[in-house]
Amino acid sequence: MLKRIYRTILFFVLTVGSSAFAKELVVDSIAIGLEHPWAMAFVDKDKILVTERPGRIRIVRMDGSVSAALDGLPRIESIRQGGLLDVILDRDFEENRRIYFCYTRPDPESLDQNSTAVAAATLKVDLSGIENVRTLFVQSPSFSGGFHFGCRLIDRGDGTLLLGLGDRYSLMSQAQDVGNHIGKVVRLNKDGSVPADNPFAQSDQVDPFVWSYGHRNIQGAVQDADGQLWMVEHGPQGGDELNLIEARVNYGWPVITYGENYGGGKIGDGLTEAPGMAQPVVYWVPSIAPSGLAVLETDRYGTDWRGSLLIGSLKFGFLQRVKVSEGVVLEQEVILPDLAKRVRDVRLAPDGFVYLLTDSSEGQLLRVKVAP
Amino acid sequence: MLKRIYRTILFFVLTVGSSAFAKELVVDSIAIGLEHPWAMAFVDKDKILVTERPGRIRIVRMDGSVSAALDGLPRIESIRQGGLLDVILDRDFEENRRIYFCYTRPDPESLDQNSTAVAAATLKVDLSGIENVRTLFVQSPSFSGGFHFGCRLIDRGDGTLLLGLGDRYSLMSQAQDVGNHIGKVVRLNKDGSVPADNPFAQSDQVDPFVWSYGHRNIQGAVQDADGQLWMVEHGPQGGDELNLIEARVNYGWPVITYGENYGGGKIGDGLTEAPGMAQPVVYWVPSIAPSGLAVLETDRYGTDWRGSLLIGSLKFGFLQRVKVSEGVVLEQEVILPDLAKRVRDVRLAPDGFVYLLTDSSEGQLLRVKVAP
Repeated sequence: MLKRIYRTILFFVLTVGSSAFAKELVVDSIAIGLEHPWAMAFVDKDKILVTERPGRIRIVRMDGSVSAALDGLPRIESIRQGGLLDVILDRDFEENRRIYFCYTRPDPESLDQNSTAVAAATLKVDLSGIENVRTLFVQSPSFSGGFHFGCRLIDRGDGTLLLGLGDRYSLMSQAQDVGNHIGKVVRLNKDGSVPADNPFAQSDQVDPFVWSYGHRNIQGAVQDADGQLWMVEHGPQGGDELNLIEARVNYGWPVITYGENYGGGKIGDGLTEAPGMAQPVVYWVPSIAPSGLAVLETDRYGTDWRGSLLIGSLKFGFLQRVKVSEGVVLEQEVILPDLAKRVRDVRLAPDGFVYLLTDSSEGQLLRVKVAP
Repeated sequence: MLKRIYRTILFFVLTVGSSAFAKELVVDSIAIGLEHPWAMAFVDKDKILVTERPGRIRIVRMDGSVSAALDGLPRIESIRQGGLLDVILDRDFEENRRIYFCYTRPDPESLDQNSTAVAAATLKVDLSGIENVRTLFVQSPSFSGGFHFGCRLIDRGDGTLLLGLGDRYSLMSQAQDVGNHIGKVVRLNKDGSVPADNPFAQSDQVDPFVWSYGHRNIQGAVQDADGQLWMVEHGPQGGDELNLIEARVNYGWPVITYGENYGGGKIGDGLTEAPGMAQPVVYWVPSIAPSGLAVLETDRYGTDWRGSLLIGSLKFGFLQRVKVSEGVVLEQEVILPDLAKRVRDVRLAPDGFVYLLTDSSEGQLLRVKVAP
C-alpha cells in the first residue's frame, strides 16, 4: 500500500509541476512509406535496419532512402498482431555482423498454429540480405490465433539474450504456469541453449528458460546503463505496466492487474496486489498501449532528462517520459502530446537522438530533437 | 562381371520363356477422382488411407467412397515432385492407432528451402483426422527446388523405421558424402532418436542415422517375410535399380550407374561398377521409372508367383514382376502391359490382393485379380 500512496503523491506533483520539465521538441520525418514498421536497429550513424510486420527487413538511410526487402528471411506468419517483430544487433555486431530478430513462426507440425521465435543471422556485407539464419528459441506451446506475441529482445551483454513474450490472449491463465513459455520473460544463450545460471535452470518443475513470469504482452524492453531491465506490457482494459524485470519474480498476470476486462468486469478476483507478486513501477488506467522503450543515456535533451525512460503510446500517439530512481518514480509526463501517430518503437540512436517508428500501412521513421 | 553375365542370361531366358509365367489378370477400379495419389495404407479390409501429393490424406472404402480430407496435417510444401508422399501404419496400429508419413517439409528457417521429413501421428477414432503430430526426422541439409525427395517408409518391426531418401537432384554428389542425409537410407527409432545399433552410430565421420548410401531417388520400399529390405530407385536416363538394401553398403550413385545424363552423355567417368560399391539386383535401360513395391506373400496369384516382387512403372504404365532367390533373379516379366496408367504405388492388402494407385489429377485406386 505504501508504494501506491507514493505513486499517487508523485502523480500529483507531476500534474502540478510538469511544466517545469517541459521542453519544446521538434520531430523530423526521416523516411516514409514503411508498411507497419515494428522495430529498428542502428547499424551505424547512417543505416538503420527496420522490420516491417508483414515479414520484411529494410535498410533505411538518413537521407530517407529505403532499400528493397532483404533476402534470406525465414518463413514468417503475418497474422493480425503477428509477423516480423523485433530486431537487435549483437553487441559485437561490428566484429560478427550478427543480428537477432523475433517473429511469428508458423508451426511446421500444425497448419493453424504458430509461436513467437527468435532467430540469429548475419547481415551480408553488401547489405542485400541476411544469411546463416538459425532458430534459437521457439515459444512453447505453439497456439492458433493472432494475438499477444510479445516479442522484444535485449542483448544482456553477458552472452545471453532476454526475450519478453506474450500470453497468446486465450492462454492467459498459463502466464502463472512456470512449466511453459506463455506470458514469460525467457533468457537464452546466443546459441539457443539454456544459460547454466538461469534462475530455474536446476528446477524440475520450471522450464529452464524462464526468467520471470506473470506477464501479459510485453511490447517494449531495454537494459539501462546500470544493467537494470525495464519492460512495458499491455494490460487488458487499463492496467498497462512498466516493470523493473528481475529474475524469479512473478509479475502477477492474470491474478493481479489494475485493468479490467474489455467492456468492463473484474478479471479473476479483481485483485490489484497479492503476496508473492510484484507491483509495477508505473501502471496506466486508462491504457496508453505502450510500445517501444528507450533510456535517455544522452544529454541531447538536457541533463535533467538523462536516464529517463521514454515509452511510446500506440493508443494516444504520444510519448511517456518516466524518471525512476531506486524503484521510485521521480518524474512522469506526456511529451509530444500532439504527435497523434501510433508509436510502435522508440530507440536511442548512436547520434544521441531518439527515433520513433509509427505504426500504419504508411509508417514513418521520425527523429526527435529539442527545438533550437 | 559374373553377375552381369548371369543377369543377361536371365533376361534371355525371360524373353523366351515369359509366356510360361503369364496369367490373365483383371483390374477393377475401386475409387476414382484422387488428386495425384501417392501412397496407401490399409487400416482394415474395408478402409484405406490414401495420400494425395498436394497435401491431403483421405479414407477410401471398398465401396468406392472417398472421405473428405483428414484434418490435423502439418504444413506441407506442394512443389513439383514434393508434397505429401508415403504413409504406413505402425505394426501395432490396432493398439496404438499410430501412422507415419513422409512429406516435403517447408524449412522454417528459409523461404525457398524444404526437406523430406517423417512425422508420426495418431488416427482419430472417428476417422475425421489425425492428432498428436510429431516430426520424427528431417532430411539435412534442406534445399531449394522440387525434385528427388525419395520418401518411402518401412516399419522394420524392431522399433525402428527405415526411410529411403532422394539426392535432391542438384546435390547428387552428396549421395557419397556420409555426413548428411542426401541420397541415403536412414534408420530411426519411432521416437525420432538414433537407434543405438545403427551401423554408423559410433562413428564421428558419419551421420548416425545413415543406414546405406549412394542412392539417387528411392520410390519404392518393402521388407519381405525373411526381413530382407528391397527398394527401387530412379536412375537418370536409364539405370533404374532394384536393390537389396543392407547396412553400411554404398550403392554407388553417382559414381557408378547404368544410366546416362538426360539427353545423353556419360555421368562422371561412365562407370557401371567399382570396388566397394554394390551392384543392383536388377537395372532397367531404358528407364521404367519404378514406383511402388510389394511382395506377393499370398497365393492369390498362384503359388508360382508367391514371393515375387511387384514394381510399378510410371513411365510405361505397367507392372514389373521380379522373382529373386538368394540374390539371383529367377524370373522377370512385364505384367499388365496394357494398363497404360502411371503406377505410383503397389501394395499387398490384407485381403491378399494387390492394389495400385495411378498418378494423375484424376488418379484411381485399382485392384488386381487373376481372371476367373
